[in-house]
Amino acid sequence: MTEPMFDKIALIGIGLIGGSIALEARKRGLAKTIVAATRSPETAQKANELKLADHCGIDLAAAARDADLVIVCTPVGACGAAAQAIAPALKPGCIVSDVGSVKQTVIADMAPHIPEGVHFVPAHPVAGTENSGPEAALLDLFEGRWCILTPLPGVDPAAADKLEAFWKALGSEVNRLDPANHDRILAITSHLPHLIAYSIVGTADDLGGHLNSEVLKYAAGGFRDFTRIAASDPTMWRDVFMNNKEAVLEVLQRFQEDLFYLQRAIRWGEGDKLFELFNRTREIRRALIHLHQA
Amino acid sequence: MTEPMFDKIALIGIGLIGGSIALEARKRGLAKTIVAATRSPETAQKANELKLADHCGIDLAAAARDADLVIVCTPVGACGAAAQAIAPALKPGCIVSDVGSVKQTVIADMAPHIPEGVHFVPAHPVAGTENSGPEAALLDLFEGRWCILTPLPGVDPAAADKLEAFWKALGSEVNRLDPANHDRILAITSHLPHLIAYSIVGTADDLGGHLNSEVLKYAAGGFRDFTRIAASDPTMWRDVFMNNKEAVLEVLQRFQEDLFYLQRAIRWGEGDKLFELFNRTREIRRALIHLHQA
Repeated sequence: MTEPMFDKIALIGIGLIGGSIALEARKRGLAKTIVAATRSPETAQKANELKLADHCGIDLAAAARDADLVIVCTPVGACGAAAQAIAPALKPGCIVSDVGSVKQTVIADMAPHIPEGVHFVPAHPVAGTENSGPEAALLDLFEGRWCILTPLPGVDPAAADKLEAFWKALGSEVNRLDPANHDRILAITSHLPHLIAYSIVGTADDLGGHLNSEVLKYAAGGFRDFTRIAASDPTMWRDVFMNNKEAVLEVLQRFQEDLFYLQRAIRWGEGDKLFELFNRTREIRRALIHLHQA
Repeated sequence: MTEPMFDKIALIGIGLIGGSIALEARKRGLAKTIVAATRSPETAQKANELKLADHCGIDLAAAARDADLVIVCTPVGACGAAAQAIAPALKPGCIVSDVGSVKQTVIADMAPHIPEGVHFVPAHPVAGTENSGPEAALLDLFEGRWCILTPLPGVDPAAADKLEAFWKALGSEVNRLDPANHDRILAITSHLPHLIAYSIVGTADDLGGHLNSEVLKYAAGGFRDFTRIAASDPTMWRDVFMNNKEAVLEVLQRFQEDLFYLQRAIRWGEGDKLFELFNRTREIRRALIHLHQA
């Protein structure tokens, strides 16, 4: 048996992502000890019942103490406060990371709290399900999925490499991006789709007459796929939109333009314009399947 | 062994839906003979290779001759021409139906061609996948899914009841709606979601730089679910939007309003408005799961 990568891993926040990291890291023997902490006593209790980590408490600093790797797994809006809470307990040489779907504001919120001698390496595993909370944790969540590291200039290369090795050991492929570029790309591939899904499910619900309606009965026609995405964690997603505002507004503007183009084509009976787009989007699906991301 | 419901079923069009009806009807012994016809020799050849029906030809009228049930399974834009082609061959007492996702224009296009003594009962199975063509046909496609009948006033009740029994025998649950009501409901539950999915995949592709991009790499963040829907048959969907114009434009207008509301909330940092919606849409998913349509 090889030596584990870390003596102690601390997970601050133990929902879908934190819980899944805990399960996977233990299964793969990546740490001698895996502890977790969350501000919610109810969540901590569930995490303990599910035995996600060796122990889950409600004192963030206590969990981070002596850890070699601390990963903040809270909604992005809570990352700054989490960093502040754990800062005094961080061991010199320790790696601090996160899993946020937005990188620029998370870096701005967390970095000022990270003590000298601690290595801050932001990360974002592009993986998840529509479920949330400790009960949503599952094995193989990261298998074959990308994890994006956005290390800052001047960070210890060995620390970034070690975090990369950790994510690869969890099953991910790893890439590195500039934080601004990350936020722009994720606004397109993840944030806009979620906003659209939330929006359309709300619209359909309003039009159909709150819940109790034919809309749900005939959801198999396409609507149900949106309801799955729109069931994602409300706090997490509110924070994403509040923290990636500029990039989201920009892609949203582009989307609105494109949708108006289709609306006009429908109004004027220009079927060829629709057909041209529908043919092109089909190719995109094929490309995705080819890349094994479908 | 009980007597089959029909001596001969004819399917005009043999793609995802027509092919799946053929497979399911044969498996369940619902007809002595199942024939199909399509205008495309290539499609007919594929259907024959796959043995979807007993035989698939390219003469629509020949297929319909002597049939007790004829189901037009073409894109909705081709239903009128199909009805015209088969009309002279239709046997008195035969039931003619369709599977179109739009009912008012299909009825307007088909009804004038249906001879006296033939029972026209429009129908729409709310089922499908993103795949199309004869190769996409599969068993159990209709299992537990709704099929909506939109019988016209004055139709023989026995004919409508027999078609209902047929769809139930294929595994569907059956409901009856007024054609205008059907079109309005489907605009919400199916047509709008497809239009949005096509639109967002096109926008993302433009923004990411045609296909070869980070957009596909990180599609697991939400985008990939849209690409699946946006891979649906371009001809079928062009026809849906051209034929359910008014209802689609109306729900699209509502959707745009709602999306602008969210856009404004993001711009002004009103996280509570987002949170309120995201919480509500999560409940809708739960209701759907409860209804077994998720």
